Amino acid sequence: MSNPFFLNKGPISLFKIYELLKISNKKKDNFNFSDIKDLLSADKDSITFFHSKSYKEAANSTKASYCLTSDLLKDYLPKTCEAIIVKNVLVATAEVTEKFYPKSVEDEFDIKVKNIENTEYGSVQHGKNVLIGENVKIGSNCLIGHNSIIEKNVKIGDNCKIGSNTIIRNSIIRNNVSILDNCIIGKKGFGFFPNNMKNFRYPHIGIVIINEDCEVGCGATIDRGSMSNTEIGKNTFLDNQIHIAHNVKIGENTIIAGQVGIAGSTTIGSNVRIGGQAGISGHLKIGNNVDIAGGSGVIKDIPDNSRVMGYPAKNLREFLRENR
Amino acid sequence: MSNPFFLNKGPISLFKIYELLKISNKKKDNFNFSDIKDLLSADKDSITFFHSKSYKEAANSTKASYCLTSDLLKDYLPKTCEAIIVKNVLVATAEVTEKFYPKSVEDEFDIKVKNIENTEYGSVQHGKNVLIGENVKIGSNCLIGHNSIIEKNVKIGDNCKIGSNTIIRNSIIRNNVSILDNCIIGKKGFGFFPNNMKNFRYPHIGIVIINEDCEVGCGATIDRGSMSNTEIGKNTFLDNQIHIAHNVKIGENTIIAGQVGIAGSTTIGSNVRIGGQAGISGHLKIGNNVDIAGGSGVIKDIPDNSRVMGYPAKNLREFLRENR
Amino acid sequence: MSNPFFLNKGPISLFKIYELLKISNKKKDNFNFSDIKDLLSADKDSITFFHSKSYKEAANSTKASYCLTSDLLKDYLPKTCEAIIVKNVLVATAEVTEKFYPKSVEDEFDIKVKNIENTEYGSVQHGKNVLIGENVKIGSNCLIGHNSIIEKNVKIGDNCKIGSNTIIRNSIIRNNVSILDNCIIGKKGFGFFPNNMKNFRYPHIGIVIINEDCEVGCGATIDRGSMSNTEIGKNTFLDNQIHIAHNVKIGENTIIAGQVGIAGSTTIGSNVRIGGQAGISGHLKIGNNVDIAGGSGVIKDIPDNSRVMGYPAKNLREFLRENR
Repeated sequence: MSNPFFLNKGPISLFKIYELLKISNKKKDNFNFSDIKDLLSADKDSITFFHSKSYKEAANSTKASYCLTSDLLKDYLPKTCEAIIVKNVLVATAEVTEKFYPKSVEDEFDIKVKNIENTEYGSVQHGKNVLIGENVKIGSNCLIGHNSIIEKNVKIGDNCKIGSNTIIRNSIIRNNVSILDNCIIGKKGFGFFPNNMKNFRYPHIGIVIINEDCEVGCGATIDRGSMSNTEIGKNTFLDNQIHIAHNVKIGENTIIAGQVGIAGSTTIGSNVRIGGQAGISGHLKIGNNVDIAGGSGVIKDIPDNSRVMGYPAKNLREFLRENR
Repeated sequence: MSNPFFLNKGPISLFKIYELLKISNKKKDNFNFSDIKDLLSADKDSITFFHSKSYKEAANSTKASYCLTSDLLKDYLPKTCEAIIVKNVLVATAEVTEKFYPKSVEDEFDIKVKNIENTEYGSVQHGKNVLIGENVKIGSNCLIGHNSIIEKNVKIGDNCKIGSNTIIRNSIIRNNVSILDNCIIGKKGFGFFPNNMKNFRYPHIGIVIINEDCEVGCGATIDRGSMSNTEIGKNTFLDNQIHIAHNVKIGENTIIAGQVGIAGSTTIGSNVRIGGQAGISGHLKIGNNVDIAGGSGVIKDIPDNSRVMGYPAKNLREFLRENR
Repeated sequence: MSNPFFLNKGPISLFKIYELLKISNKKKDNFNFSDIKDLLSADKDSITFFHSKSYKEAANSTKASYCLTSDLLKDYLPKTCEAIIVKNVLVATAEVTEKFYPKSVEDEFDIKVKNIENTEYGSVQHGKNVLIGENVKIGSNCLIGHNSIIEKNVKIGDNCKIGSNTIIRNSIIRNNVSILDNCIIGKKGFGFFPNNMKNFRYPHIGIVIINEDCEVGCGATIDRGSMSNTEIGKNTFLDNQIHIAHNVKIGENTIIAGQVGIAGSTTIGSNVRIGGQAGISGHLKIGNNVDIAGGSGVIKDIPDNSRVMGYPAKNLREFLRENR
C-alpha cells in the first residue's frame, strides 16, 4: 500500500543512496527504488532495512532487492537481496526515509488551513474558529467544536464528534468516534537518535488510525507511527490525559483509565482493562483479556487472560498476598 | 432539590417505564414519576434504584413509591415502595435516567455560545475570542482569559480568575476561585457499561462545584458527577495536570501536587496533602489530615491523621523502614 | 543582574519594611534597599533572607546590609549585615518580595496582547489568531502556530518553532527550540504558605529559560521560578505531558519521556535519561549521566553515572534482582 498521507519523492536511484550514505564500495547498478519499506512489506522495487537479529526470519524472506544492514547480519538475507553495509542501520534508514519523505520529520503547524466556513465543509455542525487543512475529508453528521484544528491529511468518518481545542493531523478517524476536548492526535512521535551536538530526529511516515465507536478523553496525546501506524481498535474507550506513543497498537473493546501512558511500539490486545496511571514500557506485547491494575508499571510481555498489578507488574494475587 | 442544570423531561408514567424496560409483568397503576433520585433523596413522586446490598439501610427507609431492583434485593424495600424487577439494575437506571435527562449522556460542544462581546457580560475583563453559552452567570470583578469557553450551565461567583484556553460547563464556581489555563471543567465522566458491540454510556446529571478560594492548576480535568456532584471544598489548591474523576468529593484546605489522579466516587477529607503523581483508586474514603506521599498508589480507605506512602500505600514509617 | 521581566518598584526604605512586617524594635537608619536578593547574589544595597542553617556559609559571606532571619540564625551573619528578626522568615520574604515586585504573585491573563498582524511581528510565519503581548522579541525564521499566545515578557531566538494552542510568558527561548502544541510555559509555580483561612501565595520573580536546540512535547507545563529561574539546558528533549515545577534546573543532552513530573527546586544533570511517568521529588540533586527507569519514584539525591529504578528508586540491578 502506498502511504496515504506523506508524499513519496521517489523513485531514488541506488547511486543517490550511495552518495547520501557516503558509501565508497559501490555496486554498479542503475537500480531505482520506488519506496523504503520494512522487510515484510517490501517488494522488489523497494529498499529495506535489517538492524537486529530478532528479525532474521523476516530478513530471510524479504522480497526487496537491496537492504541497509550490517556486516554481522548480511548473511541472513536471501540471494535475491543485496546488502548495503552501513555503520548504523537505523541512522541510515532514517536518512534514506527522509529522502523519500522529506516532510515527515518536523511537524510545522499547517499554515494552509482555512476557516471551515471557507471550505466545502461549511455545513458541518461546527463551533467558532474551526480550521481545516488540505486533503481533509469529513463524513456526514459530524460535530467539530470551537477552536479545533483539522490540519492536513485527515479523514473523518460519519457520526463523529470532535470536541473543542483539539488538533488532528495525519490521521484516519472511522465512523462513530468521539474525540473530546484538548487532544493532540497524529503529531510525530518522540523518536530520534541522541547526539550531544544536536539530536537527530527520524521521520514519522506512519499515521494514526482510530477505528469505529471509539472514545478518546480530554487532553490525550496520540502520536503517529514512524515506519508503521499507531492504531486503536473498535469500541475502545480512553479516559482523560492519556498518552499513546508512536507505533502503539491497541485492540478492540479495551478500556483505559485516566493518565495511563503507553510507550512506543507496544501492542495491547482486545478486551483489556488498564487502570488509572498505569504505565506500559515500549516494545511489549500485552495479550487479550488482560487486566492491568491502576498504577502498575508493566515492563515485560503479558500473556492472554492475565491479571497483573504492581511495579514491576506481576500476577495480581501474588502482588496482593505479598502486600497484605 | 431539583437539578440545577439538566432539564428534567418528566413526568414520566409507570407505563412508559415498563415499555422502556420491556417489562411484561406490569402492575396496573396510572402513576407518574416526577424524577429519578437515589434511595435517600427520593420522595414519593420519584422512582429510585437499589443495586447492591451495601445500601440495604437506605433502601429500607426510602420514600420512593417505586424502585428498580433485583429479585434478590426486593425484600429490603419498605411496603410503601413497589419493586420493579430488572435484569441489570444499573443499566435500567441509566435507561430511565436518560429518559428524564436526555441531554446528559453526550457532551456535544455548545453550539449556542456567543462571543462575550455580544452578551450581557461584555464588560467583564476578558481576553480575545471568549465564548459564553446560555444559562451562564458571572459575578463581579472576574477575569476570563483568551480563547476560554464558558459553555451553558455555569455559575461563576465574584473575584474569580479564569485562565486562557479553558473550557467550563455544568459547573458552579464560587467566589475568589482561580482556574488556570487549559483546564476542562464539568465534562461527563468516564462512565459506561462495557459492551463488545458498543459500550453503553450512562447519563451524567451531576455537576462540578468548586468552592470559595480554590485554585485549579493548568491542564486539569475535573469531570462532573453521574448521579451526585463532583465537589472541591474551600481553599483547596490543585497543581498542574491533575485529573479528578466523576463524583469525587474533596474537603477544605487540601493541597494536591502535580499530575495526581483521583478515580471516581472517592471522598478526600480536609487538610489533606497529596504529593505529585499519587493515584487514588475509586470508591475510597480518605480521612482528614492525611498525608499521601508523592507517587503513592492508594487502594484502600485511609483513616484520619494518617501518613502513607508506597504502592500499595501503607504507613509512612513502615514504608521507609522497609525501603531503607 | 536586574530582573529581566518583573518591574522592580524599589527603592524601598528600611522604615517601610519595618512597617510592612509590623516590627517595633526598629533601628534608626534611613537605608533604602534597591532590591531583594538571595544571600549570595545580594550586594550592599539589597535586603536578603536566611531561613535555614543549610545556608550558613552563604549567610556568613553575604554582602547584603540587612537580612530577614530568625533569632536562632542571626549569629551566622557577618558584622556588616544587620539582622531583621521575624517570626516566619519565608513569609516575611514573600511579603517584602511582593512589595518590590507586586505583579509577580498572580498570573492574570495578559489583557494587552494584540493580534500578531497588528504588531511588528506580522511578517513572522504564523497561524490564525496568534496573540502577542508587550515586551516580546521574536528572532528570525520562527514559526508560531494557531491560537498560540506569546504573553508579555518573552524573548524567542532564531529558528524557533512554537506549536498551536501554546501559551508562553516570562520566558527566554533560545535559538532552534521547538515547543509543540498545548504547552503552558512560564506561569507562576505552585508555591504558597498554607493557611486554613486562605492560602498565602508567594511571588514568582524567576523566569523560564529554554536553551538552544531543545524540544518540548505537547501538553507540557513548565513553571517559572520563585526567587531563581527554571532552566533547561541545550539539546534536551522532552516528550508529551511533562510537568516541570518552579526552580527546576535541567542540564544538557538530557532525554525525558512522556508524563514525567519533576517537583520544585530539583536539579537534574546533563546526559540524563528519564523513562516515562517517572517522578522526582523536590529539592533533589540528580547527577550527570544518570538513567532513571520509567515509572520510578526518586526521593533522594542520585550521584553521577548511576542507573536507578523502583519506588523509591534504587540501584537498577538491585531492583531487578529483588523483583525477578
